[in-house]
Amino acid sequence: MSPVNATGTPLLPKLTAIPPGIATPCDYRQAAQARLDAKAWAYLDGGAGDELTVQRNRLAFDAVNFTPSMLTDVRGGHTRCSLFGQDFTHPIVLAPVAYQRLFHDEGELATVQAAGALEACVAVSTLATTRLETLAGHATGPLWFQLYIQPDRAFTSALVARAEQAGYQALIVTIDAPIGGLRNREQRASFDLPSGLGAVNLAGMPTPQAAPAGPSRVFDQAMLHAPTWQDIEALRKQTRLPLIIKGILSVADARRAEACGADGIIVSNHGGRVLDTVPPALDVLPAIAAATGERLTLLFDSGIRRGSDVAKAIALGADAVLVGRPWLYGLAAAGALGVAHAIHLLREELEVTMALLGCRTLGELKTRQVCCVAATH
Amino acid sequence: MSPVNATGTPLLPKLTAIPPGIATPCDYRQAAQARLDAKAWAYLDGGAGDELTVQRNRLAFDAVNFTPSMLTDVRGGHTRCSLFGQDFTHPIVLAPVAYQRLFHDEGELATVQAAGALEACVAVSTLATTRLETLAGHATGPLWFQLYIQPDRAFTSALVARAEQAGYQALIVTIDAPIGGLRNREQRASFDLPSGLGAVNLAGMPTPQAAPAGPSRVFDQAMLHAPTWQDIEALRKQTRLPLIIKGILSVADARRAEACGADGIIVSNHGGRVLDTVPPALDVLPAIAAATGERLTLLFDSGIRRGSDVAKAIALGADAVLVGRPWLYGLAAAGALGVAHAIHLLREELEVTMALLGCRTLGELKTRQVCCVAATH
Amino acid sequence: MSPVNATGTPLLPKLTAIPPGIATPCDYRQAAQARLDAKAWAYLDGGAGDELTVQRNRLAFDAVNFTPSMLTDVRGGHTRCSLFGQDFTHPIVLAPVAYQRLFHDEGELATVQAAGALEACVAVSTLATTRLETLAGHATGPLWFQLYIQPDRAFTSALVARAEQAGYQALIVTIDAPIGGLRNREQRASFDLPSGLGAVNLAGMPTPQAAPAGPSRVFDQAMLHAPTWQDIEALRKQTRLPLIIKGILSVADARRAEACGADGIIVSNHGGRVLDTVPPALDVLPAIAAATGERLTLLFDSGIRRGSDVAKAIALGADAVLVGRPWLYGLAAAGALGVAHAIHLLREELEVTMALLGCRTLGELKTRQVCCVAATH
Amino acid sequence: MSPVNATGTPLLPKLTAIPPGIATPCDYRQAAQARLDAKAWAYLDGGAGDELTVQRNRLAFDAVNFTPSMLTDVRGGHTRCSLFGQDFTHPIVLAPVAYQRLFHDEGELATVQAAGALEACVAVSTLATTRLETLAGHATGPLWFQLYIQPDRAFTSALVARAEQAGYQALIVTIDAPIGGLRNREQRASFDLPSGLGAVNLAGMPTPQAAPAGPSRVFDQAMLHAPTWQDIEALRKQTRLPLIIKGILSVADARRAEACGADGIIVSNHGGRVLDTVPPALDVLPAIAAATGERLTLLFDSGIRRGSDVAKAIALGADAVLVGRPWLYGLAAAGALGVAHAIHLLREELEVTMALLGCRTLGELKTRQVCCVAATH
Repeated sequence: MSPVNATGTPLLPKLTAIPPGIATPCDYRQAAQARLDAKAWAYLDGGAGDELTVQRNRLAFDAVNFTPSMLTDVRGGHTRCSLFGQDFTHPIVLAPVAYQRLFHDEGELATVQAAGALEACVAVSTLATTRLETLAGHATGPLWFQLYIQPDRAFTSALVARAEQAGYQALIVTIDAPIGGLRNREQRASFDLPSGLGAVNLAGMPTPQAAPAGPSRVFDQAMLHAPTWQDIEALRKQTRLPLIIKGILSVADARRAEACGADGIIVSNHGGRVLDTVPPALDVLPAIAAATGERLTLLFDSGIRRGSDVAKAIALGADAVLVGRPWLYGLAAAGALGVAHAIHLLREELEVTMALLGCRTLGELKTRQVCCVAATH
Repeated sequence: MSPVNATGTPLLPKLTAIPPGIATPCDYRQAAQARLDAKAWAYLDGGAGDELTVQRNRLAFDAVNFTPSMLTDVRGGHTRCSLFGQDFTHPIVLAPVAYQRLFHDEGELATVQAAGALEACVAVSTLATTRLETLAGHATGPLWFQLYIQPDRAFTSALVARAEQAGYQALIVTIDAPIGGLRNREQRASFDLPSGLGAVNLAGMPTPQAAPAGPSRVFDQAMLHAPTWQDIEALRKQTRLPLIIKGILSVADARRAEACGADGIIVSNHGGRVLDTVPPALDVLPAIAAATGERLTLLFDSGIRRGSDVAKAIALGADAVLVGRPWLYGLAAAGALGVAHAIHLLREELEVTMALLGCRTLGELKTRQVCCVAATH
Repeated sequence: MSPVNATGTPLLPKLTAIPPGIATPCDYRQAAQARLDAKAWAYLDGGAGDELTVQRNRLAFDAVNFTPSMLTDVRGGHTRCSLFGQDFTHPIVLAPVAYQRLFHDEGELATVQAAGALEACVAVSTLATTRLETLAGHATGPLWFQLYIQPDRAFTSALVARAEQAGYQALIVTIDAPIGGLRNREQRASFDLPSGLGAVNLAGMPTPQAAPAGPSRVFDQAMLHAPTWQDIEALRKQTRLPLIIKGILSVADARRAEACGADGIIVSNHGGRVLDTVPPALDVLPAIAAATGERLTLLFDSGIRRGSDVAKAIALGADAVLVGRPWLYGLAAAGALGVAHAIHLLREELEVTMALLGCRTLGELKTRQVCCVAATH
Repeated sequence: MSPVNATGTPLLPKLTAIPPGIATPCDYRQAAQARLDAKAWAYLDGGAGDELTVQRNRLAFDAVNFTPSMLTDVRGGHTRCSLFGQDFTHPIVLAPVAYQRLFHDEGELATVQAAGALEACVAVSTLATTRLETLAGHATGPLWFQLYIQPDRAFTSALVARAEQAGYQALIVTIDAPIGGLRNREQRASFDLPSGLGAVNLAGMPTPQAAPAGPSRVFDQAMLHAPTWQDIEALRKQTRLPLIIKGILSVADARRAEACGADGIIVSNHGGRVLDTVPPALDVLPAIAAATGERLTLLFDSGIRRGSDVAKAIALGADAVLVGRPWLYGLAAAGALGVAHAIHLLREELEVTMALLGCRTLGELKTRQVCCVAATH
């Protein structure tokens, strides 16, 4: 019996050429669904609970209005930016996404190769299905490493050391997902990893000590080794890499990250995949930008689907952005080719948007008040 | 001709095991509908009038945003609370629901047994289809008794005395439903009780004296023996049990309940089942919490479907919550097993939500301003 | 070929008994559509333009929240009111509706008979398909006459005199429809009157003098004989009947009506049937109620579908209400029986609503602040 | 194989008579779709990106409420206006639309002929598929010329001179579309021009000099010859025609247009066809009207579908309006006859709306505060 996708149809073979009619990365969404089994699709496309935050991440972007300045001379414009002393052709970072071999046999390798061709920085997940050293060996562009702090802190330190050793240029620590269990769509699909596919970078990790008896699976077991701000302080001392805290949704947490010595923060609600009905990340961005000012590099993640969304996040205070689903749809549909095409479309639309707004640089996007948030959405 | 459900399909047999794909209690809703005839389904699932308040109870919860505090140490956290001098493992009370044998042959007995296993307090309805003494005999956990004041006040007093005698630990008096007649969905389904099923605890109740002639069926007959605040005062004198007034939607009525000597109130719109277009109970909760302060125990009812909703109600001022439909879907689908599973899912999601918010106790949920209401909904 | 309805099905015969499952008057809507040809249905059910005001009339009612006062003694309550020195059992007036024989062979006669049985006042339209004297001869309850001022003012005066002579007890002058042409749904259905059916009360009316040449069909022809406030002043002098101006949407026009000597006004947008995107009548009611105070009797029309809507209009300032579609669906479905049932359901729901709100009289509905308008709708 | 439309059905022949059931111009929309291939339909009906601005242009009109003044004498009213010293029977200008032979064999000729019959001014596009001189030769009413400034400025000047020479009475310069590429619906339909159809007025235009090497197709190539405000200043010196700047969305750009010597501006978002999520043009109209006052003639474009919309734009500050889709649907469905009918319907509804509002002139529409914007939309 051949494997079927979430609509009950046999899986289509991966695309080997860019199909006609792809105008924006999410035009790959349907093609992706047709090529993934129901479990992988639930993992890729779903979110937490009723997926209200997933939807509202989009509503927040849609509610931002542009105000163009017509007839502005934008010759020689560009999308270059500098982050943590590194120069980038454009501000689009591929977000850390776990288990990419769920979506395509080539998994993270395809992603890294496409990103190199399109000059995009890649954030490699702790839960990658390819060894971080292998990825570094194949990369032609910058790589950052995303860290989930593990119950065994010594193993965690070793993992960071491996990333440094392999040439990763920054360390992202994700702080908003110490416990899972609320992704209802995945649960309904009985999501699990297929055999032979796993978090290879965690191979050999010691099993955490058995928890002392306690009545709550949540408070007394799952959260027993959860990271705290002291872990961030410890990491800060341990690594020479730029330290970026991912999962900030409040000014208070932004300030704590800064106090712990972080170089940057990522305003993110994990794409709506952890706790439903947290606010759209875009809605909290302006206040955090105002509070952290020039001291922290400010990245944005959650909800970007188009190049114009990149422009909005930057206009509302971000220095650069992380993008997930748009290129994941491309990966699932067409491998490295799909990833590359998705990044290309994002970049092109960002440039056209800037030109139409009358902005030559990301700095002008940020300072010219080209965006305002509609009163209600 | 075998009985059919509201979609015209023969009734499925009750489930005897937890089916795959249940991620949240309302995932039992479809399974419940498939196992109930159209009348029972209308009674379980419907509301008053156009069911706008039923819908808005949900919109109100969906409009509440969480603001997590990341990286907080929540080890040893718990959901314990104390209500009226009684200690509870968690703040989820099973709401008083009439005629539970409509949904499953075992009716209230199944509910009480499941609740005991999951350490949930049960509020037994005046209109239960099982004798209150029988339920007390089978209960392994705390029971409260819900009272509809009957036209015959002496019979009402005897009913209260029976509940005290049987060991019920609190008395809930429902005040928001002195007259029915607006549940359009039930009326369209020609809802009535099947033969052999009724309010057994009212057996032997004297028929009220014939009303004197008057032109209005409503004002001159149905409301002739309706309770007033004087009945609450009388009850207060009559019982040693904690007295809880259910159906409060305004600060004014909360204060009258307090003035009558109530120990607690339940902010509730009866799940949208009495008068349509009353406000969502959640919308009026903060003002009532502010007004009644520490003097009254504040319970919440109407619209809770998930564990995260429990967290929201408590964060907005409630000490504990009453839940109805989520476990009723479980009861109709799978009897005691379904009720127990539903309560388990509610508890688990409440704990995960607290952990993700950085709250170790219900008290922290209440005081850390983890919720805010979106501007419009 | 048998006639078909708007869904292409042969017309069903009129109902001769109340069908099961009618919980509220609009439950007759589908039964009515099944019994009317597409033209009559477009006339009954449609509105102006895109029918946004038709929809918004409903949204405005749905956005009004009730705040009940629980446990109030409402024994002996009633819905009586006094309007223009006349006493009524309840505040529901049947709105003036043209061409009622489009909907049922018995047309206005059925309406008047049903209204008499249910003690409802009827406003008879200038465009009735039954002679006003015939209706007066069959009426067992109060009748008001609705006047469209005709191009020939002498004929108009004679019409008013006929109404007075026949015993009509008030005169409604409709001012918001001097020109038609914007009811797109009717136009799409090529609405016209079937042969043998017309405005019999206008029989013998002189054809207006040919308009002098002018470029605009609208300004130079259709509006040439349109009424102005001077016509209201003239009518005031001409009739001893209470004079009620229908079609008020602003405080300014309410004041002009008062200055012209009107006894009452009807806040109405003609059920959304004249100019689309005028505001919902309910939205402008409170300001007009505040401005006109005690000096004018204030009636409301446009959007009422349920008894609870009657309560809302009165709570927001109206002394009584006019209702159209709810009983028209009944008329089209089941003739006099349907009209009577619809009025009965409206009255019953009004009383239940009052009882649940804790109001014994319409005066208490008005003064106890039982309604508030939600912030946005 | 016969050509098919976007729904896969063979193209219907053009209508040769007005079909029954057309109550408003957009009732031609479906008839138009049935007669166009998928590419032409995407071009006619689509917009930029997710088409949110296309939708919001409509929401903005729908959110404007009318406040009528009843019983006002409007005899002798009219819709005349004077723009740039020219007198017009009504304020409806046919917007400049490219490539009209995509929609009907007779293209711009049909449009110009219909407009002449209905006394509508026509704005002829730079990208017309008919020579501007040919159109002038057939026109019986006023023509304006719409200019896209071309990379070759000398060719641009010659084009303006040709328009002057041919008798065009005003020059519209479109400033909001220096670069394309965001119309996703067209891209999905692989839109291109059929062979034999093109911008004939640009015949012989020199190919722009090859761009110097630069990394960005957008900034270094497409925008290399894009117009700036200096081009407007140059045009101002070059032509004696009234100069109208089209594509203004901010007070700042309105002021720059005035400073460059423009006679008029057109508040427009290009019908939502250039950059998605710019604000609805109607939303920015009042502020621009207030800022530019009497000094600039103020035209409005984007979103008008009905005669009542014309009234709204004028009531909110416009002197006249440009209309596109409504008559384009007519053109695609029925050629010149459809265009004429669409204009007729717009004019008729404008007049009926004015009559119902109690306004005799456009000036009264503007000054009597007949419109207000609903709080949220």
